[in-house]
Amino acid sequence: MHVPAARIVSGLAAAALLVAATPATQPTLLGFTDGSSKTEREWEEKFKAIPQPANMRAAMQRLTARPHHVGSPYDKDNAEWILAQFKSYGLDAHIETFDVLFPTPLERAVELVSPTRFVAKLQEPALPQDPTSNQKAEALPTYNAYSIDGDVTAPLVYVNYGVPADYEELARHNISVKGAIVIARYGGSWRGIKPKVAAEHGAVGCLIYSDPRDDGYAGGAVFPNGPMRPADGVQRGSVEDMPMYPGDPLTPGVGATKDAKRLPISEAKTLTKIPVLPISYGDAQPLLSALGGPLVPNSWKGGLPITYRFGAGPAKVHLKIKSTWTLKPLFDVIATIPGSSEPDQWVIRGNHHDAWVNGAEDPIAGLVPELEEARALGILLKQGWHPKRTLIYAAWDGEEPGLLGSTEWAEAHADELRTKGVAYLNSDTNDRGYLGMEGSHILEKFINGVARDIDDPETHLTVWKRLQAATIQNGSAEERKDARSRADLRIGALGSGSDFTPFLQHLGVPSLNLGYGGEDDAGIYHSIYDDFYWYTHFSDTSFVYGRALAQTVGTASMRLADADVLPYDYTNLAETVHGYIDELQKLASGAANAARERNLEIEEGSFTATNDPHTPTIAPPALVVPPHMSFAALENAADSLTKAAEHYSQAYDRAMSSGDAERAKSSLAAVDAILAHSEHLFTDSKGLPMRPWFQHLLYAPGFYTGYGVKTVPEVREAIEQKKYGDVDAAVTRVAGVVNAEAALVESAASALGKGQ
Amino acid sequence: MHVPAARIVSGLAAAALLVAATPATQPTLLGFTDGSSKTEREWEEKFKAIPQPANMRAAMQRLTARPHHVGSPYDKDNAEWILAQFKSYGLDAHIETFDVLFPTPLERAVELVSPTRFVAKLQEPALPQDPTSNQKAEALPTYNAYSIDGDVTAPLVYVNYGVPADYEELARHNISVKGAIVIARYGGSWRGIKPKVAAEHGAVGCLIYSDPRDDGYAGGAVFPNGPMRPADGVQRGSVEDMPMYPGDPLTPGVGATKDAKRLPISEAKTLTKIPVLPISYGDAQPLLSALGGPLVPNSWKGGLPITYRFGAGPAKVHLKIKSTWTLKPLFDVIATIPGSSEPDQWVIRGNHHDAWVNGAEDPIAGLVPELEEARALGILLKQGWHPKRTLIYAAWDGEEPGLLGSTEWAEAHADELRTKGVAYLNSDTNDRGYLGMEGSHILEKFINGVARDIDDPETHLTVWKRLQAATIQNGSAEERKDARSRADLRIGALGSGSDFTPFLQHLGVPSLNLGYGGEDDAGIYHSIYDDFYWYTHFSDTSFVYGRALAQTVGTASMRLADADVLPYDYTNLAETVHGYIDELQKLASGAANAARERNLEIEEGSFTATNDPHTPTIAPPALVVPPHMSFAALENAADSLTKAAEHYSQAYDRAMSSGDAERAKSSLAAVDAILAHSEHLFTDSKGLPMRPWFQHLLYAPGFYTGYGVKTVPEVREAIEQKKYGDVDAAVTRVAGVVNAEAALVESAASALGKGQ
Repeated sequence: MHVPAARIVSGLAAAALLVAATPATQPTLLGFTDGSSKTEREWEEKFKAIPQPANMRAAMQRLTARPHHVGSPYDKDNAEWILAQFKSYGLDAHIETFDVLFPTPLERAVELVSPTRFVAKLQEPALPQDPTSNQKAEALPTYNAYSIDGDVTAPLVYVNYGVPADYEELARHNISVKGAIVIARYGGSWRGIKPKVAAEHGAVGCLIYSDPRDDGYAGGAVFPNGPMRPADGVQRGSVEDMPMYPGDPLTPGVGATKDAKRLPISEAKTLTKIPVLPISYGDAQPLLSALGGPLVPNSWKGGLPITYRFGAGPAKVHLKIKSTWTLKPLFDVIATIPGSSEPDQWVIRGNHHDAWVNGAEDPIAGLVPELEEARALGILLKQGWHPKRTLIYAAWDGEEPGLLGSTEWAEAHADELRTKGVAYLNSDTNDRGYLGMEGSHILEKFINGVARDIDDPETHLTVWKRLQAATIQNGSAEERKDARSRADLRIGALGSGSDFTPFLQHLGVPSLNLGYGGEDDAGIYHSIYDDFYWYTHFSDTSFVYGRALAQTVGTASMRLADADVLPYDYTNLAETVHGYIDELQKLASGAANAARERNLEIEEGSFTATNDPHTPTIAPPALVVPPHMSFAALENAADSLTKAAEHYSQAYDRAMSSGDAERAKSSLAAVDAILAHSEHLFTDSKGLPMRPWFQHLLYAPGFYTGYGVKTVPEVREAIEQKKYGDVDAAVTRVAGVVNAEAALVESAASALGKGQ
Repeated sequence: MHVPAARIVSGLAAAALLVAATPATQPTLLGFTDGSSKTEREWEEKFKAIPQPANMRAAMQRLTARPHHVGSPYDKDNAEWILAQFKSYGLDAHIETFDVLFPTPLERAVELVSPTRFVAKLQEPALPQDPTSNQKAEALPTYNAYSIDGDVTAPLVYVNYGVPADYEELARHNISVKGAIVIARYGGSWRGIKPKVAAEHGAVGCLIYSDPRDDGYAGGAVFPNGPMRPADGVQRGSVEDMPMYPGDPLTPGVGATKDAKRLPISEAKTLTKIPVLPISYGDAQPLLSALGGPLVPNSWKGGLPITYRFGAGPAKVHLKIKSTWTLKPLFDVIATIPGSSEPDQWVIRGNHHDAWVNGAEDPIAGLVPELEEARALGILLKQGWHPKRTLIYAAWDGEEPGLLGSTEWAEAHADELRTKGVAYLNSDTNDRGYLGMEGSHILEKFINGVARDIDDPETHLTVWKRLQAATIQNGSAEERKDARSRADLRIGALGSGSDFTPFLQHLGVPSLNLGYGGEDDAGIYHSIYDDFYWYTHFSDTSFVYGRALAQTVGTASMRLADADVLPYDYTNLAETVHGYIDELQKLASGAANAARERNLEIEEGSFTATNDPHTPTIAPPALVVPPHMSFAALENAADSLTKAAEHYSQAYDRAMSSGDAERAKSSLAAVDAILAHSEHLFTDSKGLPMRPWFQHLLYAPGFYTGYGVKTVPEVREAIEQKKYGDVDAAVTRVAGVVNAEAALVESAASALGKGQ
């Protein structure tokens, strides 16, 4: 691809600047004494020079050459090739195998049966330009994994994104989905929420389609002329009820080893309740065009050249899906670099290797940087580098169907991970643009430090500086102020959608999810067109952001493994917890105001007065006004955490400025073992209400959002779901873990103080 | 059309309620003594019983039977028929004629000449169901009146709505329209702004198309299956530079009578600078699909199934328009009911009768209620009703091309109107739904009173109550609070777009614009499909909202004509002026903040840091930070007005509660002559900067919005257009008229006081 001249010029200028900027002005790294910090930086500079775009390109071409989903021959072949790579880098590596329930389709059908007949294609055509698009025999067809089998014929109803609020809108129009097949568009929630909520409302089937406004022609030329989804492109994907528990549906909470105790399929709680199939917009248009009923609101309209209507009637649809329900093998590839002085503190770095089809962007664009990191670390080991802590480099299988490989591995090694896991670093897709940083807030300051040391390939600013600029450009007034004045850019909390979930939310291992993106649009997600041809034409075509990702995650891994003391920070954490409490208070008062306003409008007769007799609507139901709720216990706990964080920070600064490097080092070492439990303290083995697998009391995927995070989930979801009676107990439980965290940090602060 | 059963039931129930509610509880009308108020209400009740939907339906069918644009045979025929109607009601009526420049097309062409060839149809097909859709020989073709002639071939650029902010976005992408033909979509501003701004940026031609997202299939089934715009439907319309001056381009400021002095066409300032044609989305799609260049932002995307791009290139377009530039006659129909005691105070009620083609919704749906009002007043006159003030019922010609009939009549009678005009009541289109009330704020309390006495045909609440409910349902928290607690619902200020403009903004006659709407969508505006078939299938099909409009405007006319004292109120006016000052202060501080933020981002290098080398953008230019501006003179004047309004209100209440009806009546009569000048005092004969025809210093159409109002326009536009140096003088000038108003109100208050 053509590289604009301006970029090369600015590259040269900035390179000069970088050389000039490198010297002594570099701050001491968090968790390191001055001396260790200098040594660390030298190793990191060596490290960052190693990853090569050409290697990543070659590895991507090899790994995406054939479909490599769970159970396919090329999935196993890839795992063995990755194993061989790790070994060739000089690392100790092996494959760990699990056996999981993974249904694949035998029969699929979607037909409009009235008022006219139309048979959906359910096929993505091969394209002559794209050499891997014709591997039909090996590829999984378009489907949603963990849909139950079904064969239903019923009226069709359009439900927008299919989230709970959409059903409130349907109710205003007196439209029920009871006994109907719903058609929802992708977006607005994780896909698995759509059939879940549809089933809760009595639907008997669910279609999910990709609207061209969201990732089709509205966003650019369609593949192969551009990056966007063509008319027959389909988004595959799992609809397993992952917010209940991810991983093998038959072995919740335990590794799906050969001899694991398995539930009968009939008792697996994470299969859908109704049959589901995904379809293209080419197939969706005739179905949606056939819908009658009232017009949908503007926010429900997509990009098809039709009038969007709710239904039901006259469109009637036949939906059929039948799968084989057998166990398939998983191949997790695990490479280990044992720690020299703290072998029982594990820093784990992972990316999955399985895909829905050829999977270039998802996940190989994230995996090939990981391989380059591993190669580079192998080279450093030979040059005499010895990480203090153990580094584990993992290539997970079965992420796509339900985080299978990571979850089963995490469950199989749960006891060890709960005590030894000090960080999990995840990546998945990777594209051009800005560094995305999400994760545990005890790592917020740490990862900001890493981002300050990575060069952006396009602007040759640091990736931190570029992200700050974007936050200023796109943020609200408050976000702009924050981005300008706060020492660290804020990182988002983690919901779900990739392999960090079992580590963070089941086991309490501090986690980060990292990746670049934001400059290129894409419409090939989970289709046969997410392949080497697409990626090398429309994404990070020169793999410079692949190199940036390797530099970012590799540096983070090394720094975590080498630090004199775990580079956790509690000041940002405490501030963030206070922010969450503010949000909860606003949520509660907002719910009260909304209920009062709604009830007043009902009382005033506003809904009756504004009813249009030509398109009648029904007033929404009156709401229970939530009682006043007390967050005092949580506020007090957060205050304690703030104080403890200040004490730790002061003690840390004193230890570091003592001028006696050896003494400082031993002070830090003394508290390392205490800090190692920081994140785990936020978990509770009883788990969240209705979903005990999720044990982290600060971060969880939303029960009705799926990927989207709910922070302080027990309290937040009690308010959102109007279970006001549950709020008090939830506040008490969360306050308990925050207080425990405060006590741990205080004990670390005083241990540090004693060391001086 | 089928009337839902529920509606009939609620109708009966509410009718019972109304009967029960009618008695003595009725408040005394503003401007009337107790006794006069009772008499007035009796006449009004008689009046409201007269207008008949069947008459309106028949009149609409007759008036829309053939195309009736300016200069057409049926335009004259309609005028003569309206005249005959007025006379048949017993009113003194005549036709007043003017001769105006009105170009109509001889040749029109739009062609894509590269990269492929496509010839635009520029035709709206006849439909078999629709009996008036085949009158091609008589109908005006699709065009934009007052476009200059031109024949240009140039690259095409998509400019969204074509407002100034859109050109800032184009500049960010380094796209110039110099030498290009722009294609803008309808909406976002009045259509005449699009070629005006395009020409300011160097474009050589302008196409305006109707995007299906705005009034096509996205909003419902298209005509004839539904009310929305079909693929070949075109919005005609004027592009005369009306924010400069409306009316005949050759006779600004004077009536276009036979012997009026006329400018040569070459000196007419309100013709466009570049050729313009409107096109359908059927014709637009091949042009827009052919555009290359970067993707547009989301807010620029319409509803066509294409990728919207800016251009320029490779699309090249040929645009040709050639018109005959001759004078055409206007026929204003004027009926007069002389006032019994105050014949020199004129209450004028108007609606235009000309259309672009058959024009059922626009304007006949508003005209036929006016005819029923006139018929009803004729009946009341025979029953012994005698209005105090003179009532003038007008049916204007030539509104569509540029408010021609009303403007020329207002200019021809300017001197009389400036002193005698005490109210102008306008209507135009009319549909089902809510009462729209806009106008002079001295009439806000008055028109709220009228709205409280009109029955909504669908809910049988008062139309006031229904509007209040809609404001509560759709408003912001502040608007909801206002709607619940303020005595009167707020009325919007008037910009332009109908015949009130010459009365209010040129002459200072207090004006109101009234009409029902908001329940039915429409996509036939200014097309051949706005006809009797469409209106009687998809709008106020039973003409009950026609009756409601007749009751509303007729009641308002009678009440204004009969009042003991002009029912103006200054309290709401003063509050509104204070609100405008708040808005201006926020505008000024917002502009300062935006400039500081922009400049800071430039300085920080944010725009460079977020530049994507694959789709490069240019940083916007630095902005001059506006100086601090003083609104003190205006604030002091508004305070004086508030005080004066309180004094008047207190004096009025004392006069009314004296218990001596005759004495109260004579007190009121004493101040009537003073109040009659209230609105005129807000005008300044020097007019607004660059457009002296607009003389009202509180209300004007925006120079860059066209129909959209700019309140306190001289100050507001100075800030918006960054002419900060002009703000002081503008504030002083506006403060002057507000102070004069305060003095008038004080003098009325003391005159009232003396009477007691």
